[in-house]
Amino acid sequence: MLSTLIELQRLKRLDRTGWTLRGLPNGTESVAAHSFGVSATAMLLADKFKANGIAIDIEKVLRIALLHDWAEVRVGDMPRTATLYFGAEARKQAETAAFRDVVSAVDSGTYSSLYDDYERRNSLEARLVKVADVIDLLIQVLALERAGARGLDEFWEVAEKPDFNLEGEAAQIVQDLLESILKARSELHNNG
Amino acid sequence: MLSTLIELQRLKRLDRTGWTLRGLPNGTESVAAHSFGVSATAMLLADKFKANGIAIDIEKVLRIALLHDWAEVRVGDMPRTATLYFGAEARKQAETAAFRDVVSAVDSGTYSSLYDDYERRNSLEARLVKVADVIDLLIQVLALERAGARGLDEFWEVAEKPDFNLEGEAAQIVQDLLESILKARSELHNNG
Amino acid sequence: MLSTLIELQRLKRLDRTGWTLRGLPNGTESVAAHSFGVSATAMLLADKFKANGIAIDIEKVLRIALLHDWAEVRVGDMPRTATLYFGAEARKQAETAAFRDVVSAVDSGTYSSLYDDYERRNSLEARLVKVADVIDLLIQVLALERAGARGLDEFWEVAEKPDFNLEGEAAQIVQDLLESILKARSELHNNG
Amino acid sequence: MLSTLIELQRLKRLDRTGWTLRGLPNGTESVAAHSFGVSATAMLLADKFKANGIAIDIEKVLRIALLHDWAEVRVGDMPRTATLYFGAEARKQAETAAFRDVVSAVDSGTYSSLYDDYERRNSLEARLVKVADVIDLLIQVLALERAGARGLDEFWEVAEKPDFNLEGEAAQIVQDLLESILKARSELHNNG
Amino acid sequence: MLSTLIELQRLKRLDRTGWTLRGLPNGTESVAAHSFGVSATAMLLADKFKANGIAIDIEKVLRIALLHDWAEVRVGDMPRTATLYFGAEARKQAETAAFRDVVSAVDSGTYSSLYDDYERRNSLEARLVKVADVIDLLIQVLALERAGARGLDEFWEVAEKPDFNLEGEAAQIVQDLLESILKARSELHNNG
Amino acid sequence: MLSTLIELQRLKRLDRTGWTLRGLPNGTESVAAHSFGVSATAMLLADKFKANGIAIDIEKVLRIALLHDWAEVRVGDMPRTATLYFGAEARKQAETAAFRDVVSAVDSGTYSSLYDDYERRNSLEARLVKVADVIDLLIQVLALERAGARGLDEFWEVAEKPDFNLEGEAAQIVQDLLESILKARSELHNNG
Repeated sequence: MLSTLIELQRLKRLDRTGWTLRGLPNGTESVAAHSFGVSATAMLLADKFKANGIAIDIEKVLRIALLHDWAEVRVGDMPRTATLYFGAEARKQAETAAFRDVVSAVDSGTYSSLYDDYERRNSLEARLVKVADVIDLLIQVLALERAGARGLDEFWEVAEKPDFNLEGEAAQIVQDLLESILKARSELHNNG
Repeated sequence: MLSTLIELQRLKRLDRTGWTLRGLPNGTESVAAHSFGVSATAMLLADKFKANGIAIDIEKVLRIALLHDWAEVRVGDMPRTATLYFGAEARKQAETAAFRDVVSAVDSGTYSSLYDDYERRNSLEARLVKVADVIDLLIQVLALERAGARGLDEFWEVAEKPDFNLEGEAAQIVQDLLESILKARSELHNNG
Repeated sequence: MLSTLIELQRLKRLDRTGWTLRGLPNGTESVAAHSFGVSATAMLLADKFKANGIAIDIEKVLRIALLHDWAEVRVGDMPRTATLYFGAEARKQAETAAFRDVVSAVDSGTYSSLYDDYERRNSLEARLVKVADVIDLLIQVLALERAGARGLDEFWEVAEKPDFNLEGEAAQIVQDLLESILKARSELHNNG
Repeated sequence: MLSTLIELQRLKRLDRTGWTLRGLPNGTESVAAHSFGVSATAMLLADKFKANGIAIDIEKVLRIALLHDWAEVRVGDMPRTATLYFGAEARKQAETAAFRDVVSAVDSGTYSSLYDDYERRNSLEARLVKVADVIDLLIQVLALERAGARGLDEFWEVAEKPDFNLEGEAAQIVQDLLESILKARSELHNNG
Repeated sequence: MLSTLIELQRLKRLDRTGWTLRGLPNGTESVAAHSFGVSATAMLLADKFKANGIAIDIEKVLRIALLHDWAEVRVGDMPRTATLYFGAEARKQAETAAFRDVVSAVDSGTYSSLYDDYERRNSLEARLVKVADVIDLLIQVLALERAGARGLDEFWEVAEKPDFNLEGEAAQIVQDLLESILKARSELHNNG
Repeated sequence: MLSTLIELQRLKRLDRTGWTLRGLPNGTESVAAHSFGVSATAMLLADKFKANGIAIDIEKVLRIALLHDWAEVRVGDMPRTATLYFGAEARKQAETAAFRDVVSAVDSGTYSSLYDDYERRNSLEARLVKVADVIDLLIQVLALERAGARGLDEFWEVAEKPDFNLEGEAAQIVQDLLESILKARSELHNNG
């Protein structure tokens, strides 16, 4: 277990390249800090789902949220543009293989199958983590913009036309949260 | 939910003061990155417990791990020495009150009771998170020492005489992990 | 004396949490850099007082300015919100006790009594240092806003309704300086 | 030309992941700073070649050195381990395609063909830049180790068994330089 | 050659003081990263000159661009205001002497004479590097402003009234590039 | 007064180049943080002088300590090697002229004459501040070495053969303090 924990430790120092490539300072956000944000968001969201009568396996949600970016310790936090050159499928395969190697010393199959589920968005739990991944990104952008950052408009496009493959009450809860984020941003820019 | 998420976002930037007070660079580790480390460690450890036949509620473990440091967004990451001047009890009370305010908009009671459980180490799950908190600290120290940091000896004292209030198989698993960390450290210094 | 100097050295690395909690980069301002700013401001202000015929002990002003934040090396730079949970009185007592321990090896009573004077704003000198503490904060905010930072509005509230317990010429000098800062800020935002 | 220059500007902020993944601080070395180091090294080395009677096109050397890492602005500075999962050939193809897009607005064919030459190490000039790439890396490691960094042993392996496909005088000059670096390192560790 | 390379390595860590003195974070741009930017800009610009029938020695351009800031490793990146106090001539002499010492172990005269050419803007190649030096500065300012930085207006003054001592087609190419930068900036501020 | 305070604010961000040129991270120590360290050291040392019956003007000591580095906001923190190329006398003259301009809006002559006193080490107070300047440097080096930094040996040379032009009891107090620092360092290296 130790070698796995030592390797995951490296995620605390790995910068999310989305910020540095847009001119923000090194150290703006690590992959580990983002993973925490996604996990915390996923927990609050899953509890809200449950409180609204949506059946959801919260243990599974939290597991997926925690592990969904572990492959980056071996392949790095590739910029979005990288996918254009490697191809989405090749990127997914490489990351999956990297993930399997990262967990190889501790996995009896659970981690890999949760990872595959996430990559394919098979379950509601996987889709909820994808929502949390986007929500944490948008709230990070909002926090940076509140502190004066500019040039991050392209991140807001996803918020305009979300495609999370959710239905009914679940879709509504996510939609409401996204709208409250967009409203907070619009207030920021009206006041700024 | 949005105001809570915005506040938690701040943990990504809050430096753990243990490092900066010992002369390491700003940005060495954020509270959010540490919370990720504790949660990942707790998941691997809980799965190991389960695989060894120890009954444990993993959802509860992950919840406690994720939220155990949220109070710091309001009271800061106080250095250990602060406890000498405020008193352990006053510190605990202040952090508990801060935690309740942080989650007030999203809590139906679950988060607060998990927090209280952690503070009192009532359940096996709470005690396991405390183990993960220490393990993540030690592996961070090991990583810093591998990268050349010195002056961190005091952190290793806890590893020599752990008091996690565990028994039987659980105590053994934790003891084995601690010993493997101490061994890795001793190899580091023999080679360095 | 050496152990005291070694401990004070740590203030050079301790981040002021006001900035990092508002999303500004780690390393924005250390407690030591702030203490320098307060001391330099206090010297210029005290000389202005003196030039305007106000009797003031400048040595005492400079001593208080230099030492007023030394307790933070043991209790950290607590965010403002922390006071809500610990209580202003408990915070003051803890910081006073921490200060006494920091200086214990070098203090024959002078440092502690200067610290107490500052905490109680007993003397004109103590009140002038409090003014300098606020002025340095506002000029730091102004500098950050000039460099593009946003989201720091709450810091300006104190400048609107200062309560420094000063009278006559002293009050006027401080008021004039505050107004010149507010004017500089208003010009910044009209041009920006 | 402007859009190309704006994009290349981003290399100044992009961290070389080799350092951060090994626990060194963010901001240790940018891709732009490394490219400068490679180019300066290549110039000195090429002048040494020339002074020893080796025919070499120095303009070509400098061009290749300056542009050899431009693809990273689109695919990131991938860690070495990434190659295991993407495959060396796929990585090369993706980087080549990214490079072509980066220079598309300014390239009449020269830049792309220099890039291809470098990737294939066809010319002596391309091979010399590869040498400079490794020399700059080793001198950066040496500088970090002199400043206290540890855990960078693996970088020295390449220095033990270089395979630059050089012959005669050229091979000798490179070998001498490598040996002087290894000697400097060994003196460092004997004294440290 | 090794001692020269070790000394040049230090340019990777040396901050350009123009940014930090204006309140931007440490690590915003190193002298090495700037030198890379100047060299890349100079190469694109020289190729454009050549494509427009202007005779230019590109090897010479690249050499001057790479080495024009090496003196800073011994005298630092002095702020502009420093020239007021040392005098432009004394500064030039000191930097020239420092440059000669930096390259003394590797120079057969070429580097020093290229440096002198640059300082005197004797050749078209030297003047083109000066253009690239200014262009890279402006594009860095533009990138910082896009990311939210403010307070950098004074850097744009040079762009309004450039004095590069160029004629005919060369002057036109540079003028066109400057205008496209000014246009990009004006669009930025109209949208922001 | 405001324009002076705004300019001095910049010292909080200006890196001491001694560290970055030796490969330590940007942000290791600002000029403002160093000035705080010198002032605090000077206060403790002056009080020790006084307690040992040495007549000393402590207000004057603190004033000199606070302002002795203000010229750097206009000429930068020049590396030691810069003096070789500008000459000690020219550097002193430039810094003196810069200092006068920095304080011109607030100085009735006191600041300039204190600065001149410091530059010439005329008074005991000026010489004590020079001692504090060196002591703060050595304790910063010691703190960095305790945290793992290496390659700072040259800074210790001054501690071996101090030349502060002090006599009797004053010389003895300083000698004792220097020896305690050297002893602390030697213990560090025996244990490390």
